[in-house]
Amino acid sequence: MKVKVVTNILEANDRIAAGNKKIFDEAKVFVVNIMSGPGAGKTSLIERTIKELDGKIKIGVIEGDIAGTDDAERIEKLGIPVVQINTGGGCHLDANMIREVMDDFPLKDLDLLIIENVGNLVCPAEFNLGEDMKIMLLSLAEGHDKPLKYPLMFQESSALVLNKIDLLPYTNADIGKMKKDSLSLNPKLKVFEVSCKTGEGISEWIDWLKSLVK
Amino acid sequence: MKVKVVTNILEANDRIAAGNKKIFDEAKVFVVNIMSGPGAGKTSLIERTIKELDGKIKIGVIEGDIAGTDDAERIEKLGIPVVQINTGGGCHLDANMIREVMDDFPLKDLDLLIIENVGNLVCPAEFNLGEDMKIMLLSLAEGHDKPLKYPLMFQESSALVLNKIDLLPYTNADIGKMKKDSLSLNPKLKVFEVSCKTGEGISEWIDWLKSLVK
Repeated sequence: MKVKVVTNILEANDRIAAGNKKIFDEAKVFVVNIMSGPGAGKTSLIERTIKELDGKIKIGVIEGDIAGTDDAERIEKLGIPVVQINTGGGCHLDANMIREVMDDFPLKDLDLLIIENVGNLVCPAEFNLGEDMKIMLLSLAEGHDKPLKYPLMFQESSALVLNKIDLLPYTNADIGKMKKDSLSLNPKLKVFEVSCKTGEGISEWIDWLKSLVK
Repeated sequence: MKVKVVTNILEANDRIAAGNKKIFDEAKVFVVNIMSGPGAGKTSLIERTIKELDGKIKIGVIEGDIAGTDDAERIEKLGIPVVQINTGGGCHLDANMIREVMDDFPLKDLDLLIIENVGNLVCPAEFNLGEDMKIMLLSLAEGHDKPLKYPLMFQESSALVLNKIDLLPYTNADIGKMKKDSLSLNPKLKVFEVSCKTGEGISEWIDWLKSLVK
């Protein structure tokens, strides 16, 4: 008898994530894992992105939430294939959850699969899902002290979308410090300043996303 | 030999929390565990509270963060005894962390011990610290869909402080829905609408807090 003890939950997750990545690569679908604290605007960014791309890139969306289907309903209204994962209390998505729903998509027909993680600035950063790229959001209203308090997500992400910049006149947030501290943690971080509400800065984000997926 | 297997990390935590509670009760200090997502204004609320109470209630503060000492420095400036816990990656405080720092305070000289948890709307709600009461914040800028997506923290808390109401004219947030959904999860929840920036609504919060501690 051979007994295999999985001693490290993160190692076990990484093995499943590597399997997911292989399947995504074979289907030639680019996969992004979008993370942020609660209410930073992940779903709003996905909605904006779908509208701006206007069918030019074929998109699928996986929505991760502890409970509820609000976000998936928002995406479904836009005519995009979407699956809602409810973690039932779990504070992050893991690779196995993605493995279990990936067959619900016609992966070979997609160019881009967007995974919206559970709203949590901490735990999701530790769990690879098999994505090509991690992208994080930070709302201006969260304040400029966040990068140094939650360093891992900034270090793991390839891009930072600073959202809700329309609120700049009404908060004490120092956007210069936000960017400086983010880049000190991750000098390669690509930073976008956007407002999903007004549309400001969205075109730069869309151009960059297109350049990745093509 | 007797072998004791701790099968449930939450059970183990609850045992330590019960011990903490006993020590706090004997010292006659009222303990609150303040929780929220990142950037909802926990430290700002504590600062405001300290200033408004103006020495009338003797306060100590435990600051919980993954990294950094920003928050403890803000509290120390107000002349209040404060200890910073850095979890080093951990997404919540647990009872043992509180046990390890509680002796740094002259507990018998305090009326109120405020514990500021790690900014996370999920995991902290599962871990009792030995507090008398859990209090949560939600920033208006996080949007009105949060209660139904993160139900546990709303169910575990005795009070909800809706902060940043000065941003109401500049967001799409429906404060009526926020309150309705929060109360549907927890009909006994005491709800305060405040702005730690402008001071709006703070006096109601202070009066309530005084009534608990006296």
